[in-house]
Amino acid sequence: MSYSEETGRLLEAAGATEGAMVVLEAAGRSYRGRLMPHHEFSGPDIVILKMKSGYNVGIRVDGSSRIAVEEQPSEAARREEDVQSKEGLPTLSLIGTGGTIASYVDYRTGAVHPALSTSDMVNAIPEIREVANIRAKVLFSIFSENMGPEHWQKLAECVRDEIESGADGVIIPHGTDTMGYTAAVLSFMLPDVPKPVVLVGAQRSSDRPSSDASTNLMACARFCTESGKAGVFVIMHDTQGDDSFAVHTGTRVRKMHTSRRDAFRSINAPVAAHVDASGKVEVLEDLRDSSDAPVRVEPAMEDGVLLLQYYPGMDPEAFRPLIMSSKGVVFAGSGLGHVNSSFVPMLREACAKGIVVAMTSQCLNGRVNMNVYDTGRDLLAAGVVPLLDMLPETAYIKLRWALANTSSPEEARKVMVTPLAGEMGDRREF
Amino acid sequence: MSYSEETGRLLEAAGATEGAMVVLEAAGRSYRGRLMPHHEFSGPDIVILKMKSGYNVGIRVDGSSRIAVEEQPSEAARREEDVQSKEGLPTLSLIGTGGTIASYVDYRTGAVHPALSTSDMVNAIPEIREVANIRAKVLFSIFSENMGPEHWQKLAECVRDEIESGADGVIIPHGTDTMGYTAAVLSFMLPDVPKPVVLVGAQRSSDRPSSDASTNLMACARFCTESGKAGVFVIMHDTQGDDSFAVHTGTRVRKMHTSRRDAFRSINAPVAAHVDASGKVEVLEDLRDSSDAPVRVEPAMEDGVLLLQYYPGMDPEAFRPLIMSSKGVVFAGSGLGHVNSSFVPMLREACAKGIVVAMTSQCLNGRVNMNVYDTGRDLLAAGVVPLLDMLPETAYIKLRWALANTSSPEEARKVMVTPLAGEMGDRREF
Repeated sequence: MSYSEETGRLLEAAGATEGAMVVLEAAGRSYRGRLMPHHEFSGPDIVILKMKSGYNVGIRVDGSSRIAVEEQPSEAARREEDVQSKEGLPTLSLIGTGGTIASYVDYRTGAVHPALSTSDMVNAIPEIREVANIRAKVLFSIFSENMGPEHWQKLAECVRDEIESGADGVIIPHGTDTMGYTAAVLSFMLPDVPKPVVLVGAQRSSDRPSSDASTNLMACARFCTESGKAGVFVIMHDTQGDDSFAVHTGTRVRKMHTSRRDAFRSINAPVAAHVDASGKVEVLEDLRDSSDAPVRVEPAMEDGVLLLQYYPGMDPEAFRPLIMSSKGVVFAGSGLGHVNSSFVPMLREACAKGIVVAMTSQCLNGRVNMNVYDTGRDLLAAGVVPLLDMLPETAYIKLRWALANTSSPEEARKVMVTPLAGEMGDRREF
Repeated sequence: MSYSEETGRLLEAAGATEGAMVVLEAAGRSYRGRLMPHHEFSGPDIVILKMKSGYNVGIRVDGSSRIAVEEQPSEAARREEDVQSKEGLPTLSLIGTGGTIASYVDYRTGAVHPALSTSDMVNAIPEIREVANIRAKVLFSIFSENMGPEHWQKLAECVRDEIESGADGVIIPHGTDTMGYTAAVLSFMLPDVPKPVVLVGAQRSSDRPSSDASTNLMACARFCTESGKAGVFVIMHDTQGDDSFAVHTGTRVRKMHTSRRDAFRSINAPVAAHVDASGKVEVLEDLRDSSDAPVRVEPAMEDGVLLLQYYPGMDPEAFRPLIMSSKGVVFAGSGLGHVNSSFVPMLREACAKGIVVAMTSQCLNGRVNMNVYDTGRDLLAAGVVPLLDMLPETAYIKLRWALANTSSPEEARKVMVTPLAGEMGDRREF
C-alpha cells in the first residue's frame, strides 16, 4: 500500500527518502526522527518516524504539514550487517512470507524495502542472538489472504531445504488471516517433519506500543531451541497480556478474533506447549522428539475442492453445478453434522460419481456424530464421510492433499478418516 | 425415526402400544414400566420405558428379549387433562417446532404421538404452573436442519397471533441445530415485538439424567414472567452445571459446540440476562420494556441469497455462476474482512449488477475493518458492504429480509448497515 498522492508529493518535494533523518511539523507539533517505510497497517496520510526513543510514531499529515530532511540515509546504514555465528548455539531459519509481522521487522531497521535479513532480525530483537544463530530469507511478501497452493508448495520445499542445510528449527512469519490454513497445509505436506516448524504472526503493527511482533518471535525462538520437539505449530499470544504464549498444533488452530493478540485458539485439542515471558518452555502434550531423520515433502494439492457452510435455506439446486463439477466437498454442517434433507439425493449422486463429500460442524467445538439423527444416517448412507472433531478448514486442506496423494476417491476417503498430524480424535472430554 | 424391523416386530407381537404398562426382559434383567414413544435420539433397537420412579430408561433389545403387556393404555390416560387457569398469573404460550426438547415433553407424559399440550407441560414441569398459566400448540414437528423460510413465516405469524390473543410471553421449543438462525429470523420479522419471545432447546434427551430440557424451559418461564422485558431471545444453559441460564440476544447467539449444554454463546455482545437455579432473573443489559403495543410482522424473505466462507484456494471462476445468479451474498471473509484479490473484479461486477455483497468475518469474534489493508479497500471500492461485528449467520438472515422489504439494492444496502435488532455495533471493547 502506498501514500496518498498529496502525502507522496510532500515527501518527494522535501527529498525525504526512507531512512532519512527528518523534522516533520504537523498539527502544531514538531517531530524529529528517521523516516520509516510506509506500513500496510497505516492510512495513506500517515508518515511513520522512528524516534530517538526507539519507538515508531505514526503522524497524520495534511496540506499544512511541512517536512525537512536533516540527513540522508547513509549507504552504510542500509548495508546488511555482518552478524557472526556463535559456536554452540542452534541454528534457526526464518522464512518470511509477508503480513504485519514482516513489515514490523522492516520498521525497526529502517530498511528501504520490506526485507527480513539477518541484521534486521538481530536489530529488532537483539536477545534472539543469545539463544540461536539466525539465518533468514524472504520467500514472499504478500497479504496472507492471497496465499494459495503455489505458495504453499514453495514454502514446504523451502522448509525442507532449510532443515536439510542444517536448521534446527524453522520460523515462518506469516499474515494472520490465513495462517491457520497454511499451518494445516505444512502439517500434511511435511509428514513427521523432524524439526520444529513454527508459524507466527502479529495482530498489532509495531507502531503501536501493544505490538506483539517481537514477543511472538522471541517465543518461537525459545520453543525451537528449548523444547526438543518436532512438528508444525503456530505460536501466538495466549492472553491479552505480554506474559504467555501458546504453542498450537498446526491442524487444530483457528483465528477466532479479528484483532485481539490472543486471537488464535486451539479447537478440540489442548494447547501443545506454553512459553512464558521469561522464555521458559513448558511442553504440555505428548509431542514428537526432534531428530535428524530425513525430511519428506509431499507437496501435491488437488484443485476443485470446496468448503461450504450449510445454512437453512441453502438451495441444493443452486449449488448443484458447483458441487457436481468438484472433486471433493467439505461441509461445515449444522450441529452434529447435518444439512437439510433436500441435499441428500444430490450428495448420494455426487458420492456415487467419485466426489468425496466430507462432514464437519460449523459449531467448530465438539465432534460430528451422524448416527444420532435420521438426517445424519441418511447422509452416511449416501456416502458422506464424517470427520469427527476435525476443523472445517483443516478438513478442506486435508481433502485437497488426500485427493492429490491417492489414486482413487475410495483411498482418499480412507486417508480422510485416518489421523495423520493430530488433526482428529478426541483429546478432550465432551 | 422408527424401530428396527426386528424390534418393531417384537413390540407388535406382544401387542405393546405406546402408553401400555409392560414387562421387558433383556440382557438378563427385567424392567417394568410404561412404553414411551420412540425417540429420535435413541437407536433403532432401544425401547424406552417410563419407570415407577418417573425416569425414562432406554433398554437395548435383541432377538432374545421378551416383552409382555400388563395393561393397555386407558383412553383416560391419553385424554388432555383439564388444567384450570389461575387468576392473577401471566399467560405464556408455547409453540412447539420439534427437536430434542419437544420429544422430551412427549416422553414424560406418555403421549402416544409427539405433542406438546397443556397437560404435557404441566405434567413435565409442575412448577411452571406456579409462575404462569400455560397454553401450548404444536406448529411443526421437524428436525431443525429442515427449518426453512416457509416455517419461519408461519412461526412469526403464530407468535403474533399468540401475543394478540393475550400471551404475556412466547416460548418456542426448537431443535438446537438452527435455533440461532431462527432467532435472527424472528428478530427481524417481528420488529420491536412488545413481549418476550424466547427460543429454547435441549442438548441432551430426557432419557439421560443430564437432560437440560426442563431446566431450560423453566428458566424461560421465569424470564418471561419476571423480567418485564421484550425482544427475541435464546435461553440455554450458561455453564455445564445446572445452576445458571444465559438469556442471549436473538441476533447475537451462535451454537458453538456440537453437544455441550452450554453450547450457545453470545458473540460480540454480552449476555442480555441471567436466570439462576432458584429462578432469580437478573437483567444485565438495557433491554426494551414489555408493553401492550401492537405486534408488527414483516415476514417477507428473499430467495437467492448465499452465505459463503472464504478460504484460500477458493476459485472465483467456479463460484461465478452461483454468485452472479444470486440476489445477495454474505461472505465470511478472513481476518478483518478479506477475500483473495482475484475475487475483486467479479464482486465489482456483481455489485454493479445490483447484487448486494456483504462482508463479515469467519473469526466470528471481533469486527470487520476493511480500511486497514489494500484488499479491504479494494472490496469497499467494488461496492462490498462491511458489516462490522455482525455474525455471518445473522447477516445472511438479515440480507434475505432486507432484500424482501426494500425496493432497491441501494435501499437494502442501507438497511444492512442500520442496526435494527441489536445485531451490530460494538458493545464490548476490542
